[in-house]
Amino acid sequence: MALKINAIENVANIARIDIGRTVRRGVPEIVYAEGKSSDDLIQICDRIVSRSGRAIVSRVNEEQLHKLNEHFKDYEVQRTPHAATVVITSADYKKVETGGRVGIITAGTVDLPVAEEAAIIADEMGCKAFLEVDAGVAGIHRLAEPLTRMVKNNVDCLIVVAGREGALPTVVAGLVDIPIIAVPSSSGYGYGGKGQAALMAMLQACSLGLSVVNIDSGIAAGVVAAQIANRVAKARSSG
Amino acid sequence: MALKINAIENVANIARIDIGRTVRRGVPEIVYAEGKSSDDLIQICDRIVSRSGRAIVSRVNEEQLHKLNEHFKDYEVQRTPHAATVVITSADYKKVETGGRVGIITAGTVDLPVAEEAAIIADEMGCKAFLEVDAGVAGIHRLAEPLTRMVKNNVDCLIVVAGREGALPTVVAGLVDIPIIAVPSSSGYGYGGKGQAALMAMLQACSLGLSVVNIDSGIAAGVVAAQIANRVAKARSSG
Amino acid sequence: MALKINAIENVANIARIDIGRTVRRGVPEIVYAEGKSSDDLIQICDRIVSRSGRAIVSRVNEEQLHKLNEHFKDYEVQRTPHAATVVITSADYKKVETGGRVGIITAGTVDLPVAEEAAIIADEMGCKAFLEVDAGVAGIHRLAEPLTRMVKNNVDCLIVVAGREGALPTVVAGLVDIPIIAVPSSSGYGYGGKGQAALMAMLQACSLGLSVVNIDSGIAAGVVAAQIANRVAKARSSG
Amino acid sequence: MALKINAIENVANIARIDIGRTVRRGVPEIVYAEGKSSDDLIQICDRIVSRSGRAIVSRVNEEQLHKLNEHFKDYEVQRTPHAATVVITSADYKKVETGGRVGIITAGTVDLPVAEEAAIIADEMGCKAFLEVDAGVAGIHRLAEPLTRMVKNNVDCLIVVAGREGALPTVVAGLVDIPIIAVPSSSGYGYGGKGQAALMAMLQACSLGLSVVNIDSGIAAGVVAAQIANRVAKARSSG
Amino acid sequence: MALKINAIENVANIARIDIGRTVRRGVPEIVYAEGKSSDDLIQICDRIVSRSGRAIVSRVNEEQLHKLNEHFKDYEVQRTPHAATVVITSADYKKVETGGRVGIITAGTVDLPVAEEAAIIADEMGCKAFLEVDAGVAGIHRLAEPLTRMVKNNVDCLIVVAGREGALPTVVAGLVDIPIIAVPSSSGYGYGGKGQAALMAMLQACSLGLSVVNIDSGIAAGVVAAQIANRVAKARSSG
Amino acid sequence: MALKINAIENVANIARIDIGRTVRRGVPEIVYAEGKSSDDLIQICDRIVSRSGRAIVSRVNEEQLHKLNEHFKDYEVQRTPHAATVVITSADYKKVETGGRVGIITAGTVDLPVAEEAAIIADEMGCKAFLEVDAGVAGIHRLAEPLTRMVKNNVDCLIVVAGREGALPTVVAGLVDIPIIAVPSSSGYGYGGKGQAALMAMLQACSLGLSVVNIDSGIAAGVVAAQIANRVAKARSSG
Amino acid sequence: MALKINAIENVANIARIDIGRTVRRGVPEIVYAEGKSSDDLIQICDRIVSRSGRAIVSRVNEEQLHKLNEHFKDYEVQRTPHAATVVITSADYKKVETGGRVGIITAGTVDLPVAEEAAIIADEMGCKAFLEVDAGVAGIHRLAEPLTRMVKNNVDCLIVVAGREGALPTVVAGLVDIPIIAVPSSSGYGYGGKGQAALMAMLQACSLGLSVVNIDSGIAAGVVAAQIANRVAKARSSG
Amino acid sequence: MALKINAIENVANIARIDIGRTVRRGVPEIVYAEGKSSDDLIQICDRIVSRSGRAIVSRVNEEQLHKLNEHFKDYEVQRTPHAATVVITSADYKKVETGGRVGIITAGTVDLPVAEEAAIIADEMGCKAFLEVDAGVAGIHRLAEPLTRMVKNNVDCLIVVAGREGALPTVVAGLVDIPIIAVPSSSGYGYGGKGQAALMAMLQACSLGLSVVNIDSGIAAGVVAAQIANRVAKARSSG
Repeated sequence: MALKINAIENVANIARIDIGRTVRRGVPEIVYAEGKSSDDLIQICDRIVSRSGRAIVSRVNEEQLHKLNEHFKDYEVQRTPHAATVVITSADYKKVETGGRVGIITAGTVDLPVAEEAAIIADEMGCKAFLEVDAGVAGIHRLAEPLTRMVKNNVDCLIVVAGREGALPTVVAGLVDIPIIAVPSSSGYGYGGKGQAALMAMLQACSLGLSVVNIDSGIAAGVVAAQIANRVAKARSSG
Repeated sequence: MALKINAIENVANIARIDIGRTVRRGVPEIVYAEGKSSDDLIQICDRIVSRSGRAIVSRVNEEQLHKLNEHFKDYEVQRTPHAATVVITSADYKKVETGGRVGIITAGTVDLPVAEEAAIIADEMGCKAFLEVDAGVAGIHRLAEPLTRMVKNNVDCLIVVAGREGALPTVVAGLVDIPIIAVPSSSGYGYGGKGQAALMAMLQACSLGLSVVNIDSGIAAGVVAAQIANRVAKARSSG
Repeated sequence: MALKINAIENVANIARIDIGRTVRRGVPEIVYAEGKSSDDLIQICDRIVSRSGRAIVSRVNEEQLHKLNEHFKDYEVQRTPHAATVVITSADYKKVETGGRVGIITAGTVDLPVAEEAAIIADEMGCKAFLEVDAGVAGIHRLAEPLTRMVKNNVDCLIVVAGREGALPTVVAGLVDIPIIAVPSSSGYGYGGKGQAALMAMLQACSLGLSVVNIDSGIAAGVVAAQIANRVAKARSSG
Repeated sequence: MALKINAIENVANIARIDIGRTVRRGVPEIVYAEGKSSDDLIQICDRIVSRSGRAIVSRVNEEQLHKLNEHFKDYEVQRTPHAATVVITSADYKKVETGGRVGIITAGTVDLPVAEEAAIIADEMGCKAFLEVDAGVAGIHRLAEPLTRMVKNNVDCLIVVAGREGALPTVVAGLVDIPIIAVPSSSGYGYGGKGQAALMAMLQACSLGLSVVNIDSGIAAGVVAAQIANRVAKARSSG
Repeated sequence: MALKINAIENVANIARIDIGRTVRRGVPEIVYAEGKSSDDLIQICDRIVSRSGRAIVSRVNEEQLHKLNEHFKDYEVQRTPHAATVVITSADYKKVETGGRVGIITAGTVDLPVAEEAAIIADEMGCKAFLEVDAGVAGIHRLAEPLTRMVKNNVDCLIVVAGREGALPTVVAGLVDIPIIAVPSSSGYGYGGKGQAALMAMLQACSLGLSVVNIDSGIAAGVVAAQIANRVAKARSSG
Repeated sequence: MALKINAIENVANIARIDIGRTVRRGVPEIVYAEGKSSDDLIQICDRIVSRSGRAIVSRVNEEQLHKLNEHFKDYEVQRTPHAATVVITSADYKKVETGGRVGIITAGTVDLPVAEEAAIIADEMGCKAFLEVDAGVAGIHRLAEPLTRMVKNNVDCLIVVAGREGALPTVVAGLVDIPIIAVPSSSGYGYGGKGQAALMAMLQACSLGLSVVNIDSGIAAGVVAAQIANRVAKARSSG
Repeated sequence: MALKINAIENVANIARIDIGRTVRRGVPEIVYAEGKSSDDLIQICDRIVSRSGRAIVSRVNEEQLHKLNEHFKDYEVQRTPHAATVVITSADYKKVETGGRVGIITAGTVDLPVAEEAAIIADEMGCKAFLEVDAGVAGIHRLAEPLTRMVKNNVDCLIVVAGREGALPTVVAGLVDIPIIAVPSSSGYGYGGKGQAALMAMLQACSLGLSVVNIDSGIAAGVVAAQIANRVAKARSSG
Repeated sequence: MALKINAIENVANIARIDIGRTVRRGVPEIVYAEGKSSDDLIQICDRIVSRSGRAIVSRVNEEQLHKLNEHFKDYEVQRTPHAATVVITSADYKKVETGGRVGIITAGTVDLPVAEEAAIIADEMGCKAFLEVDAGVAGIHRLAEPLTRMVKNNVDCLIVVAGREGALPTVVAGLVDIPIIAVPSSSGYGYGGKGQAALMAMLQACSLGLSVVNIDSGIAAGVVAAQIANRVAKARSSG
């Protein structure tokens, strides 16, 4: 962390190298593929992979995936089933396990792409990610079992994804004392249906102990949850 | 009901009398005091009391209450403690008990004015009203006891009032099969805090079996709940 | 209802079976097809059909319909003409008639998909559904005839669908004392044209005795109307 | 009108005098008192009265009214009861009757200030104004009588003021072929309650033959209605 | 007009015929083609043409136009070049000239579809329509010439169409005393670019003497302008 | 935590006692004074103080403060200078130090009430709170010194409060790898000036590693930051 | 400017002094008085006056003005008549004339506070400010004279303030080639009346050559206009 | 400039020629291709090219580009790589270098189309344009180098393009005293993601010395920046 803050004090080239090192230890660079040409995307990924051995690309479409597979045929190219996030790694890349533990619960199956996005990021940041799907509040009893598993798995941070009225984070936050990152998903309809109802509800949550990221942002949730979990893990190991 | 529909066919004075009769059997006239001068208010109440023996006035301020008490000193003038709704009745007015049963649950104590408004209306429409306060979702277990009482009281319709994230109606609707009228209250803060978050959330509710009235509208909720309860009660008695 | 409330008291596996039973008697599970892959959809329907003999699927597209027909070729697969709602039933499935009576009126022909969605749900919940189309307020006299039929059919609850300025529920609520569920439809244009004008207008309705569901939500309207009608019917039969 | 268009061609002082003459025959200057100091207000009124023999001032508060009465003690100072619009006229001022006929209908008594504002403007522009209050749509039959009177009075233009869901202009436009100016009033509550619901609804109106002015703008409605009526009246007299 | 008001008093079949007659003299039925199947469209047009000798259909797409041409091959089927409005007339249909005069000015060429929609409606309602395109406020001098022609043509009502910041109606209303119908068009971009900026600006207009219809609604503007013009024309001829 | 999750499994009285115990170890009850009568406020505080030895009350006005001081004259009643948060403690109440470390940075001096609210909550939850005021982005160099102190103080979580354009959390998150809770404050003006601009900006933040609470919610930020810090502290001590 | 950019490279105390010097040559510190206690305000002004010989304070209320006059009785304390902006200067303070020329035009008299705020800032930044009031677009000919004066005064930048529909900047930008800073003022009513209509309209402006600041922000407009004018003046003098 | 103002005084044909001459010296006509047919586009370009030797067309699609290339095969037709802006010039067209200097900085690579649009306009208005891409605030040190280059290049005006939270203009304005035109880009997601967050943030900017144009409007930014730079350049050369 000390290195990182130096970045303000020492600008220019040297600071950049320092920052680069810090970044590899903290938050990885994540390339947002939407709207980028395949050529631009490959060029950016090339630079990142050559520098750090790994590139993470989110929201990849079929054509982009095809081109990435073709270009990085000597690398491992993995794609999540629902979120269309791609991780490209060189043969010698080694992910460092941090010991952090991140839980992810979704209100519905429709929230799976967001949850997967969060899970892959937490995983790439060295955490172990636990995922429970479709634990919504319409039948509150459905929640008991997955939540109990989260508690037993001793997660350090809990991401809760919900669309529609976004009530799940409130209910969960009222039951556990794990820090909660609430993610509104855009799975609704009509008035407030593109995630605004869920976002508003999460910001208004009566239960204390939760904070919120933007609509559908599995990446923002994954990074902040992994940061929290990694900090706890570091304290555990160095305690 | 047959009479009522005649109102379209036979306009003018006679229709008015017919409507008047229907109205006395159905929804009472409710005077909204906010923004009215005390003189206007008294004049309107006078006409309604003389016609039906009872006037219901909502959102009455101190000055208006004083003037109403003065003017209607030969009548009974009752005021609800939180909602500032006033019911003026002549000595010979007799409320008809319908046998309808309306339940009202609030998420917080701050929702009490809205709940009281609904309760007094349901009561004036002949129903028995059951009220449970502060059963919010932040600690979901707080809900079990009041909800059990509602089920035991065999209410025909359940009004659920909630501000902030407005999650209580969704949770309740997932647990009981009683028709639910959800009322968003304006008890929030910041983004969506004037009832919009709660309104949006209730309209987006994953649980089926609930419908919504406008923000803080205890009156709209009370009338529709009483209509449902009275219809069930009528079926019960004539079944 | 007693069973249902037990769900809070007795969580875990057993409660789920109890809830399952209650649900079959109350609100059926409705699968929202939009955004789901045909494979996922079939898998979900398989599970529901095997458990309850019937699956209801809303917003089905052509490809999904084709796959469902193929997969459920030994079942009855019915599709509504405008709403694209599909009901899959096994040979031995028997819908229970409740005696509930639900009326549905639309302001325009463009509101037919929403009305059909409501009608099929009310029907599947055991009610008899009565539908009147294009009774809008631009020529108020057009309303008299269909409304008279609704009164004669003695409906227990009345769903009123309207887009644009959404004035029909207000006008209807001023003429009858049947509980009204107002549904704003997204059939408008320009400022407020995606259903917001209609939604706002219905929430602001001067007429008392109506409550509102979200834009285009025939399903939410159908369920709550059927719940009301079934409650009245139960009271009638057991009165 | 020819003079008026000259204003573009001949700018500077002379054009101003021309415009002034046109304006006296067309739309009078109306001073908006809100936020102005009494001194500023008197100064502006002085100039207008000296030029045209009459000043119209809208939204006058008690202190301003007192000061205006004091200052213009040798003039006639008239104030409308609800709208707080003041008309100051010199002894020799003579209003010209145009023969135009403007009708004004309100949905509720709460819309009276807006209606009065429109009426006084139409009157000052030389029209005869007809006012009918509280003809709302909640009981559609209440509308027949006042509307019949409007038709009998042969009004050239009809201003319809409504708050809440703003449905009255739609209903009226479906029944008569008089051009309608719809005015949303801010008399509502909760979602859309400051006139937005009414504004949206009026812009979405299914009935053709109506146009809209801004929320609570009795002045804008009065001017445009008087312009229409005066144009018809001029055609009548010169036909 | 007397006939029309009867519609409230005499409902049912006879009233409908009366209304029908009134409608032919006043506002024609206009079919909104968007979202309708070609079959439905043809069926509706058939009924209207057989009843009145003419059908007006707005927002017709290529496929619908083809089908209409095919089906009404024994009728005249005319389509406006930009607005895609279609008028179908039988051989013996005779449009009645009313003597009304409607002017239409647009701020840009992009507003032409809206202007054409208004023009064809005014024309079908018996008026003579005058159209001036691209007289925007960015160079205020561009306005002088077309406005002068409007004044010379002695139009009874002036429709002003503008997108982006919607300033043209304000400027025009400050220069002439013709009643103005302002139409915001959706020709903008970024913040407020779908017509909201123009709508808001027109409702806020400092110039008095204008009223507004919904975004892109050439039809609403055309009908209300023609109603005004026809009323003036009638006064002229019967004066 | 195990106890807490039991709350779902074992409802009713016993669960409440369990929850009560968990709550004392986790998130304290915080009473929102705004809108409550002094009597109600005292009654609620009495109950909480008697149960836990301490009551935290936010947004206390002068009258309420006076009454609280009077009623709790045998207790310690402390009030924060800007936030008007009051902590009432009995003589024998002992706050448990957790070892958690929470940093709070504000963009301006105007954000001090929000920062104080967060600080007192973190403090009452057993953390050590570090506060730096007026480190805004308009002069980015102003940020270096306070941020360096935060890093040296080794805070476990960093709350960043900013109004207007809300850019500070983004800039800070780009410089350190501490989890950040961003709090938009309502200190702005004009378009987006009540905290919406800051809220939107924080949700859109390019920097990863931050999550957001509602506008002005020092309490929500304080609780979630303390939860994170306490979790890290617990790991440190038990590592 | 070179000094200023050093601020990034050399943080801490020394940079601050450098920045301070730059600031005195560029943008002065402006204290926003609203919401600040008189004590805080005096303390902040003391520090600024002692450092630079002058303090500018905006939105000063009566009590604050009284206290400032009292405290700074040995200084010159000047207050603008409408904007309530105060400038405190020591006896030896000398404002440097830059030669920059800033013009300010308002649409109405109600925009005067905003215009004054801009004028005083431009003046304090060394420019000569020219002010023309009430040149609105409702009568476009009113604009010719003041605009001609602006051109004759050879202003380097033109601030145009307008509320309501905010059309004046568009019209002005179409007539001159001076860079224009448009300021929406909150002088409107109803839909979009708090400056949103004007803001939207200005951002949508068809005329090129204008940019916009936030609603009512005379200060932001004054600073940017003075920066432009000072840059032109510097080029003039060093050309 | 004197000529330009004449346009108000002398309307009609002669004024147009004057304006035309002024326009060629100031802001060029820019054709917005979106939504125009290729035929219309060619016709408009033909007229402009024949009058001024050059046509600038923005937002050109592939088909339009093909047709333009075909039609103007005897002209030079240049297209920017990302912004799809096309400049058509005749062989004898000579762009006049003004000596103005415009800098453009973007927060991300995704903002390149907007930046290119601004650059080509500044270039066509005779300025030298300097472009720096991807200098965002997430790592504030990335900004130092490009900003230093801008200062060294002595730009007269600085355009700063940013999407998401739009913080870059605030940070830049705090570091340099060059007038800044901030352009919000629509490169975001979720709440406020279509440029509203960036627009709001820029209007709320704490740093003084910046003004704003509409979302994605490279053209508006380019024109106003070039106007400022040209004015400075003119002062430089004539100083």
